[in-house]
Amino acid sequence: MSGPPAVTAFAPASVGNVGPGLDIVGLAVEGPGDEVRAEWIEGSGVRILDPGHAELPREAERHASGLAALAVLRRAGVTSGERGIGLRVRKGLPLSGGQGGSAASAVAGAVATNALLGSPLGRWALIEACLDAEEAVAGRHADNVAPALLGGIVLLRAVDPLDLVQLPVPPDLFVVLVRPDQRMRTADARAVLPREVPRAVALHQAAQVGAMVAALAAGDYELLGRAIDDRIAEPARAGLLPGFAEAKAAALEAGALGSSISGSGPTAFALARGRERAERVAAAMVASHAAGGRRAESVVGAVDRRGARLTGDGSEES
Amino acid sequence: MSGPPAVTAFAPASVGNVGPGLDIVGLAVEGPGDEVRAEWIEGSGVRILDPGHAELPREAERHASGLAALAVLRRAGVTSGERGIGLRVRKGLPLSGGQGGSAASAVAGAVATNALLGSPLGRWALIEACLDAEEAVAGRHADNVAPALLGGIVLLRAVDPLDLVQLPVPPDLFVVLVRPDQRMRTADARAVLPREVPRAVALHQAAQVGAMVAALAAGDYELLGRAIDDRIAEPARAGLLPGFAEAKAAALEAGALGSSISGSGPTAFALARGRERAERVAAAMVASHAAGGRRAESVVGAVDRRGARLTGDGSEES
Repeated sequence: MSGPPAVTAFAPASVGNVGPGLDIVGLAVEGPGDEVRAEWIEGSGVRILDPGHAELPREAERHASGLAALAVLRRAGVTSGERGIGLRVRKGLPLSGGQGGSAASAVAGAVATNALLGSPLGRWALIEACLDAEEAVAGRHADNVAPALLGGIVLLRAVDPLDLVQLPVPPDLFVVLVRPDQRMRTADARAVLPREVPRAVALHQAAQVGAMVAALAAGDYELLGRAIDDRIAEPARAGLLPGFAEAKAAALEAGALGSSISGSGPTAFALARGRERAERVAAAMVASHAAGGRRAESVVGAVDRRGARLTGDGSEES
Repeated sequence: MSGPPAVTAFAPASVGNVGPGLDIVGLAVEGPGDEVRAEWIEGSGVRILDPGHAELPREAERHASGLAALAVLRRAGVTSGERGIGLRVRKGLPLSGGQGGSAASAVAGAVATNALLGSPLGRWALIEACLDAEEAVAGRHADNVAPALLGGIVLLRAVDPLDLVQLPVPPDLFVVLVRPDQRMRTADARAVLPREVPRAVALHQAAQVGAMVAALAAGDYELLGRAIDDRIAEPARAGLLPGFAEAKAAALEAGALGSSISGSGPTAFALARGRERAERVAAAMVASHAAGGRRAESVVGAVDRRGARLTGDGSEES
């Protein structure tokens, strides 16, 4: 086994379920993210040295980052030998926030662990490893892990076997994330999804996904906005999210191209053309929540085109 | 009212329900089509002078072409005055064949009538007029009329109000149409469609539509083929189409990118890269039907990028 004595990897926030793209379209957002430092330690296996948050588990088998590290070891066909791997997580993303926090922890954990091992896995295998971790934490969906790892906007054509498409990112596209002071467990948000959908709704949803992809390819911002029309998840989940409908209306009023729930919420996202408009949209959404007596935090960022990256070899600390 | 004394318009065959794009993606095929000659006649209103086939109705209100002509008059806000409009239809497409025959008749009828009137309607209004006609004949779906009128590959984001996207056409894309000796009424084919679909199927279908659009934009033929994976209509209808499954398997075996039912059948379509391969695919599909004791006819063509067009002013005959 080769590689440096310690590495730190960063993975960005991501919007899963982009508009009509429930489970199948995700995008990475420049700015906040999770960071994981992987280092050799005494002992064996994977140990969480710092889970990143008091409420996150300290067992590797229950922490997204630890699960991803274990999956990397398994998929790389290596054991850590006489040494163990310790992970220190720095959570930049909220827990149960709908900003791809567990995916970012998994991706950063996988990338750091892989680098520590001398990079036996390619990006494809890393996504699979993160999918293993997500499956245990939030369900086998790649719409957060794929953009968090690869960056950009990703369409998942299929998960088993994995078949994904990186979609073009129009240059002026900005993303607004607004998180009201509320938690939403992914499992709860999934429970309200309909098991069956009327055929007409299914076909409408498919048409919106097609239109969204066409809009990204053509740089057609207006069409992109019209295609953010989710009739499966948003109607089912909006009722769980106080103030969402009003904040979305405020976003559109302020010039957003479109707006919907990010992942399973409670974060809402909006897309806007240009940073200035995106800032106005963010302010309008936060003000809408304030008018309803709810605190909300906003982030405005371009689409993160880089995805996960090493941020330091950490050797000076090891 | 201005315009020439008679005009003839042609509209090409089209594949509706392209793969996963049930009701929402259609493409025009170079080669066969329907032709309608519109001319001034004594009397008033619209009259079908030649329905184009012994089994087609002679009443304008029941013939796709007559319905479209009437819709053009209505939408243009004009009456034919003291003169009537006579339509002569030349069917190049089979009845109930799944090649967009009623759409082609409607489109050619609308385009010819519009030209006869001095072209009061633009293309957008013409699509709406054809939708009116299709609604009466086969249901309010634009996945045949839009490509028959505009050419190319069309995604319908929405029908009310109409919002469509013309998708890029990769240069080497060829279409194979194989029609076994069988009829399929659109109404019967629609009756077998499930009213509800499992959420997972709906999301898979949406992902395929997105992948199909991405593949067309990127010229990725392999991805296009993988995306031709319809899990809503094809499983429901395949049982009504003797030999379809075998012909599809033969198409893939012969190098087709993908294959599915064209419109509501019985025609099957296949996509292939290059004319030579498309010809091989067509031969394999016809041979597969022959092995099952069924006669089948094939057409191979590029995507028709021109759509409906005037083919002669007919003035010498009027």
